This record gives sequence, structure tokens and C-alpha cells, in this order.
Amino acid sequence: MFPCDFLCNDRAKVKIRTLEWIDDIDGFLRLIDQRVLPQVLPRRLVYLDCHDVPTLAEAIRKLAVRGAPAIGIAAGYGMCLAAQKIDKQANLSDALQILRKQADILASSRPTAVNLFWALDRMMTCASRFLADNPGACLVDVQKGLLSQARSIHIEDQEMCRSIGEHGRRLIPEGGSVLTHCNAGALATGGIGTALAPMYVAHEQGKRFHVYVDETRPLLQGARLTAWELLQAGIDVTLICDNMAGMLMKQRKIDAVITGADRIAANGDTANKIGTYSLSILAAAHNVPFYIAAPSSTFDLKLAGGEKIPIEQRSPQEITSFGDRLTAPEDIKVYNPAFDVVDASKITAIITEKGIIEYPDTDKIAAHLGHKGQ
Amino acid sequence: MFPCDFLCNDRAKVKIRTLEWIDDIDGFLRLIDQRVLPQVLPRRLVYLDCHDVPTLAEAIRKLAVRGAPAIGIAAGYGMCLAAQKIDKQANLSDALQILRKQADILASSRPTAVNLFWALDRMMTCASRFLADNPGACLVDVQKGLLSQARSIHIEDQEMCRSIGEHGRRLIPEGGSVLTHCNAGALATGGIGTALAPMYVAHEQGKRFHVYVDETRPLLQGARLTAWELLQAGIDVTLICDNMAGMLMKQRKIDAVITGADRIAANGDTANKIGTYSLSILAAAHNVPFYIAAPSSTFDLKLAGGEKIPIEQRSPQEITSFGDRLTAPEDIKVYNPAFDVVDASKITAIITEKGIIEYPDTDKIAAHLGHKGQ
Repeated sequence: MFPCDFLCNDRAKVKIRTLEWIDDIDGFLRLIDQRVLPQVLPRRLVYLDCHDVPTLAEAIRKLAVRGAPAIGIAAGYGMCLAAQKIDKQANLSDALQILRKQADILASSRPTAVNLFWALDRMMTCASRFLADNPGACLVDVQKGLLSQARSIHIEDQEMCRSIGEHGRRLIPEGGSVLTHCNAGALATGGIGTALAPMYVAHEQGKRFHVYVDETRPLLQGARLTAWELLQAGIDVTLICDNMAGMLMKQRKIDAVITGADRIAANGDTANKIGTYSLSILAAAHNVPFYIAAPSSTFDLKLAGGEKIPIEQRSPQEITSFGDRLTAPEDIKVYNPAFDVVDASKITAIITEKGIIEYPDTDKIAAHLGHKGQ
Repeated sequence: MFPCDFLCNDRAKVKIRTLEWIDDIDGFLRLIDQRVLPQVLPRRLVYLDCHDVPTLAEAIRKLAVRGAPAIGIAAGYGMCLAAQKIDKQANLSDALQILRKQADILASSRPTAVNLFWALDRMMTCASRFLADNPGACLVDVQKGLLSQARSIHIEDQEMCRSIGEHGRRLIPEGGSVLTHCNAGALATGGIGTALAPMYVAHEQGKRFHVYVDETRPLLQGARLTAWELLQAGIDVTLICDNMAGMLMKQRKIDAVITGADRIAANGDTANKIGTYSLSILAAAHNVPFYIAAPSSTFDLKLAGGEKIPIEQRSPQEITSFGDRLTAPEDIKVYNPAFDVVDASKITAIITEKGIIEYPDTDKIAAHLGHKGQ
């Protein structure tokens, strides 16, 4: 069993194994099925075991696993599932072709989060290099190499979350309140989250603060996931509807907004869950600092600005029904983008595992990532 | 049967009898039960018949009937139900006492919409005057007087809606798009609505435009009611989640925002469904005109500004569950205000049955209402 008891500490006695690779190279990926959170009865988590790539791609598409970093980790392990399909007699070129096809299936699952493509590239590069360097390697060696790489992605993600938490904790105001949107917590990562990491670390260190959570329509990731995991950790949390954030800011009840990110362009424009853009405008209008917390793998320096970030459009049924109950006229037209893009000019700072980029712009981001001149 | 086929015209062949007094003084109030809209199967409306004041008060509290003007009309008819409880042998003072007690039950149903109190005052004044002027009047005369008054409130409301529509139609941009929040339509009034009235009139007159409807969490009045009634009328409508409005404004897809109001203070500060405040800030940030449409009975000139408007807090279960399904941890704290208050400075114009108040302030509003110097 792969250890990821990152939330198992004195203050937050909770183990959330968002993703877990069970056993060795012939194993499988076990996910918390986030579609069925929170459970009413029985009070236990539901897991989804993925034994092949199509099952995992479907799990990503249907949001059983979601959150940009978690999708990246899942894709890494997905390539280990892909490697199980390689015939023992396959040659180097056949093996790579099989992996590429399976990677394409995973890549088609969701378009916006860049971590998915980043992880697939990393796994494919790993496989190519290994096979090129070891032309006589047996299949088991390839599989071991890939599993080791996937585990590295997972471990690095845990460390990344912790670092974001350490860098960001000073932004959590003692005795104050922060607002977050969607879920950028343990359930969105392999560790303690991105946007929630500063809260977990501040809480561990005894800081007292309050968290308002946007329920986050249409899929209620805030209500179902963020509220749940913050409660598990013993953090003081209040749930609101997305349309209440402005009123709270007017009442000066929000001292900071912190969200995650699905893709950040070279200039700092940031795609995140639909509603984040509105929050950034409301925060600016009320002089509330607006922070993005995300690993450096979320940056897509190939895109100069946010206007080129592809925005996933999702099914109308996410808005027009709840379970099997219709909540709107059946034949109504629906606009359902999964993400929107915050202008860099509205971001007070981006928190990464490397530190904090205040008032981000192209130069500061390049310097921060060590890509100066890119 | 009381005629209110206000939506029965060439273009919009729909009859929506939001409220209907059935028969004469010994009759009852029939409401469309808006809690169960939209119906999946069978495709018909569900009605709720109120034969006494407690049933009606509960219907108002539980939002079977809602919308500030409709609540006012319901309260008017409610006093006709109250009058049915007066003993035939009762004297003047006893009769008034019974009416007052029943009025108090209705007054306690919802705190924010001022039309409720306005209608109850009007009905009580009618009863007092009638009894004072006709000390020997029999009970039937009192009941007839009250029913006549309630019907007047209903008819005036229809006329008011039509006038708002006529004044406001020029604000609907030919070939453009408007955004509305919650339901301020036929289902919220005795007529063609307040915020939706300009759309109905513009549509009747052949203007082509598009309407975006905020679903309006937590109770989805936009998805369930506004989308439904605009579709019935053949108007081009797209449903969105509340948190998508900002992104649409950024894309310049919204040319105007029009909402109703539950109470307007003397200076123009306006209480309306939660989320309206955020919309007003987003509209201002994107240079989108922001309109309020409401009858003059919505003004509460006793309140100088919006900070004194009482804001109803509603049950956490509206946010934490859907039907019998839990959508958030059971023990989560919830903040659930039903309304927020838009600053007058963010309102481009208020449309009433008397005309349009551009950039409203205390003087313009007093002049518009004919209360100069108040």
C-alpha cells in the first residue's frame, strides 16, 4: 500500500486517500468516488477501482476524481494500467504505440486542466527514455519504471501541497475569514490540497480563523467536498450559495479569497471553476485580496494570455436536473461552461510550491518558474 | 371566476392564473403551488386551495406563492378569508379585532417584502372605514366590501404590470440580451410581472431579443419559474447558474440586467432576492445598465436607506439538501439570507407603473411618487 496519510496528524485526525495505487505493477488505482459524497447512510466513503484506462478516463470525465492535481496523478497511474496491456512479446515501437493510444484516451477525458497533459507527457517521456536506454528490457522493467514515475508524481504532489501550505499560511488572517470556491483540497490532490493547504497548515499551527465555502454550482463541489473535508479536519466552516459572496464582502466578513487553478497562462491569467471570475471582480470591488494557489505544473507558458485557454462545456443536465428530478423545463437552452478565466490584474498573488508571486505578470512568473527569457 | 387571463394574447397563448379567488364572498383563494414547478409528469399545474388564513400564511411562508406583488394580492384575499370567520352576531369592535388577529398571522409570514404590509393596511383601513361609516351593516356587506377591495388590489396589480411593461419595453435592446434573476414575472404578480413585463410587452410588439435567466439558488426560482413562464410565452431564453453571469458580462453577452424588488428605501436602495447585490457590482464593473422594475407599492419611504430593511434568514436545509437527498454534510453551518440590498448608486433606473426614475435618489423618488418634501 502506498502511504498517503497526509492528513493524519494531531489536529486533523483524518485520512483521505483520494487516490491510491493498490499493490504492485499488476495492481490497480483506487479512487474515492467523489460523485457520491457526502454519503447519508452508511457514513462511509465509496471507492471506485480502476483496472483499465477506459474506466479511469470515464471516472475523470464523470468527475469521480477531479481537481487539476488529482487528475494529473490519476493520469500517471493510468499509464501504469496502460502498460499492463502491452503484450510480453511486443517490441519497443509496439509498446510505445500502445502506451500512446491509451494516453490519448486519457487526454480526451477533460480539456481544461493542464496537469493532465503534463502528467501524460512526463509518463510517455519516461517510457520512451527507458525503452531507448534499455532496448533489451523486459516488460516488467518497463512497468516498474512507469509505476515508480507515477509514484514520484504522487509524492511530489504531496510535497507540493505541503509547500503551498507553508508559503500560504501567513495569508490566512488570525481571527479573520477566508472564502474559497469549488474544491481545491485534499480531494483535489494527492496531498492537503492547494487552496486549502494554507488553511490546513494554519490550523495545525493553532491559528484561529473561519472559512466560508461557496457551494459551487452546478455540481456542488464546495458543499459536497470542501465543506466535508474542512469539517473532518475540525476547521470552522460556513456554507453559502455562490450568489451570497458579494453580500458577505459588503458586510466586510471576508478578509481574503483563495481558490485553486486549472491552468495559468504565462501572464498570470487563471482558469478555474466557473464563478471564480465573478469572485475576482467582487473581491476587487470590495478591496479584498484575491489569491490563487496552484503547483507550478499548472502554468502553461505556451499560452501568453488566458483567452486561449480551452473552456470545457458540460452537459445541460447538470443544471436542469438533480438526480432524477427535473429542476427546470426539460426543453430549456442551457449555457454550462465548467471554467472561467480570471484576469491577472485581479490577482493579488499566486501561491506555488516555490513561494508567492505578488501581483503576477509575465516577467515575475517566468522568473519564479526559472524560465527567465522564455 | 375572476378574470386574469393577462397572458392570453396572440403571441403568448398562455394563461397563468397565479392567484384566483373562486366564487363569491364564501369562496376561497386558489394558488398555483410554485413549489412543485416544473412538473415532470403529468404536465399540468398543481393548485393549492386556501380556505383559511393559517393555510395561506403557511403557503406564503413555504413559498407556494411568492413574489412581492403576488404576496400583497394574496394578503388582500387572505383578509376575505379572515372575514369569513366573523360571527354573524359580532359587533363592530369584535369584528375588527378578529380581522386584526388574522392580519397579524399573515403579517408574520415573511418579513422583507413591503407589499404584504401595504396590502394588509389597505384591507384593514377599508374594513374600519366601512364599519365606521355603516354601523348597522350586516356581515355580508363587510365581506362584500373586503372582496371588492381585494379584487381592486388584484386588478390594479395587473394594470401596474402592464404599465411597467409599457414604460420598460424601450430598455429591451433589439437583437440584444438581457439577464434577469429570480422570478419577477407572471408567477410573482397578478399580471405579466414586473422585471419580465418589459420583455412580454417587447415580445408582443415583435422585438427580437434573448433572455439569460439566473437559476437563483437556493430555491431555483429562475430555473423553475422564470425559465418556464418565458418559454410558455415563446421568448428565447437560456438558463445559467448564478455564478456564470460575470463571465457572460465579460464576453459582452449581456446588454442589460433587469430584476424585481421586494422593498425600496426612500433613497433607492433596493432589497431583492439574494444575489442581486453581486449582479449590481458585476454590472457596474462591466458597464452594463442595471434596472429595477417594481410597483410604487414596493417603496418604503419610512426607511431613508437600505441598511434598515429587515433581511429574512431562511432554513439551512434549503442549501444542504435537495428533496430528501443531502447535498452537504448534515452538521455544516449555513448562512442563508433570502435577500440582499443593492446600493442606489449602482441602479441605472427604476421602472414603476408611473414611469422611469433614472439614477434614482431621494428627491427623484419623492417627486416620482408625488410625495415631494416627505
